[in-house]
Amino acid sequence: MTINTEQRQQQRHRERQQKVKEAVDAKVAAATEERGVLMVLTGNGKGKSTAGFGTVARAVGHGKQAAVVQFIKGNWDCGERKLLEAHGVPFEVMATGFTWETQDREADTAAALKAWEAAERWLADPAIDLVLLDELTYMVSYHYLELERVLSALRQRPLHQHVIITGRNCHRQLIELADTVSELECVKHAFEAGVKAQPGFDF
Amino acid sequence: MTINTEQRQQQRHRERQQKVKEAVDAKVAAATEERGVLMVLTGNGKGKSTAGFGTVARAVGHGKQAAVVQFIKGNWDCGERKLLEAHGVPFEVMATGFTWETQDREADTAAALKAWEAAERWLADPAIDLVLLDELTYMVSYHYLELERVLSALRQRPLHQHVIITGRNCHRQLIELADTVSELECVKHAFEAGVKAQPGFDF
Repeated sequence: MTINTEQRQQQRHRERQQKVKEAVDAKVAAATEERGVLMVLTGNGKGKSTAGFGTVARAVGHGKQAAVVQFIKGNWDCGERKLLEAHGVPFEVMATGFTWETQDREADTAAALKAWEAAERWLADPAIDLVLLDELTYMVSYHYLELERVLSALRQRPLHQHVIITGRNCHRQLIELADTVSELECVKHAFEAGVKAQPGFDF
Repeated sequence: MTINTEQRQQQRHRERQQKVKEAVDAKVAAATEERGVLMVLTGNGKGKSTAGFGTVARAVGHGKQAAVVQFIKGNWDCGERKLLEAHGVPFEVMATGFTWETQDREADTAAALKAWEAAERWLADPAIDLVLLDELTYMVSYHYLELERVLSALRQRPLHQHVIITGRNCHRQLIELADTVSELECVKHAFEAGVKAQPGFDF
């Protein structure tokens, strides 16, 4: 009996996919716990904040209540913000813009603390399903916020509440506390090749 | 003369931030080209598709016209889709769901081709500012789509059009063609620790 190549290829494909299916099914069966996830998006690659905002959009699409604190990016025009605010997502935006523009440590610290207080309110509110703490990592690494205060609010949040933290150089203790951590590595970036940051895509 | 620690710390902070500012300013000055960017989000980490959808939300927030092709995830309930369709973003969704569920190579190939035809129409349409090709990489690695056909449509697209490709194991030639590539590495994942995928967060 001869089996033609196409049939053999089909058969191999089916066997391979069956293995994948079994592995995925087993994992799905084992994952039974339902609780809020602390997710960290860190690393130097592009897409961290955008993945955070994408998750907020997803939550909104499911009728969930999300809240956003934007650290650092205060003075940028933000397309996501317009769209999400129109869908009832409250924003607290740290007002000083990039710290290398202001170069005023005291003003930055005060602004960080003010933004953090909004974060603490939402992290204590069971009506909020998802809190995005965009660019929080810098507040910790610049010592604008106390690590212990941040960890404590995250640990004490409502059981079902999801939290996303974005930013480079995430503190080791935040990584340890997190359930899901993705590190975005920059393989290449158009900006380095002379392409300008463009509204509606880069910001 | 004695200088107190606080003042010295302030001064060091200012000098460090000044250096950062100079480096950023120089890069911004050098980046003058305005054109559509081909961005690839690849790697095993969580957040690739979500960053893609976040960029679509950003584009919509800026009044840009985006279009989405979802390869593979056809049968999933998708919060982003509801939100974005309500804002005039057309979706083409490959109808077969995960390939390890269907295990039918011919049906998958036909479905991939149908979805790709929508992609080609949008990639040829100057009225579309951003095309998200979600999970496209698998269509190439499973040989459901011809690499050359994909590369050709990407190369010939309107100059200002942005494109985002997501998925693991992105083909080397797509990486080469891309302007911006982020590789998401999975540091840890709640799912592996037994936490169930939850609507409004994971999908």
